[in-house]
Amino acid sequence: MIGPIHHIAIVVRSIPDSLPRYRELFGWVPEDEPRVFESQRVRLCFLPSGPPPAVRIELVEPIDAGSGVARFLADRGEGLHHVCLLSDDLPGDLAALAAAEAQLIDREPRPGAHGRVAFLHPQTMNGVLWELLESTPDHATGDDA
Amino acid sequence: MIGPIHHIAIVVRSIPDSLPRYRELFGWVPEDEPRVFESQRVRLCFLPSGPPPAVRIELVEPIDAGSGVARFLADRGEGLHHVCLLSDDLPGDLAALAAAEAQLIDREPRPGAHGRVAFLHPQTMNGVLWELLESTPDHATGDDA
Repeated sequence: MIGPIHHIAIVVRSIPDSLPRYRELFGWVPEDEPRVFESQRVRLCFLPSGPPPAVRIELVEPIDAGSGVARFLADRGEGLHHVCLLSDDLPGDLAALAAAEAQLIDREPRPGAHGRVAFLHPQTMNGVLWELLESTPDHATGDDA
Repeated sequence: MIGPIHHIAIVVRSIPDSLPRYRELFGWVPEDEPRVFESQRVRLCFLPSGPPPAVRIELVEPIDAGSGVARFLADRGEGLHHVCLLSDDLPGDLAALAAAEAQLIDREPRPGAHGRVAFLHPQTMNGVLWELLESTPDHATGDDA
């Protein structure tokens, strides 16, 4: 079984411009400073939606025009981008998904912000971009900041 | 503070056509039979992403062309639709949100599938349609099917 949900990502124009509104409206504060994830040309910030192990909101801001996230923002504007699920056995789950004819963007795990990840193409299931994140003991307790 | 996340909604063409794929790819099964929510002209089905209190995926299928969900499907296709957050004090939270100049679709709570709800307009924050759901003791334990 794959899951549960680890985070939900939202593409935003500016993390600094967005954070005060989350604090004001929902009382949410980031679990750490926004950080640049160079290989994906984005800045990231995680906002827990409650005490651990509550699901996080991940704000994703493109740092230049050269990423899929930048194209998403240009084409569709700010909004929901992907849902990330924990996987206890990422290589095994990817093999099983490929055997079930899921459309894998990543056939092998690659480095993500919280560990190794792989994405499923939105054509696989209901137009949603699903991310799988290799689970660690810290993920289970929500203490993986 | 508002949160944590209760469910994430995905608009789909057909719940019966979608469910086998969730079972096959993720091992997810619905917590109950799909049911029609007449006032919104949709059929709904909830899929827990793990053991309680894991966040649920809500599949939303329009039952005719006369709903916002049907227009969403016609305009944008299947995909992520909204994020639902628990509220311990829905009338109080709505008053505070209005005072903070959030754009409320519902100024007063109205009946939803799991209790009283209200929606915030996507222009309020990062293009996301946020739903607030009045919390009950069952929501806290994930036992609110």
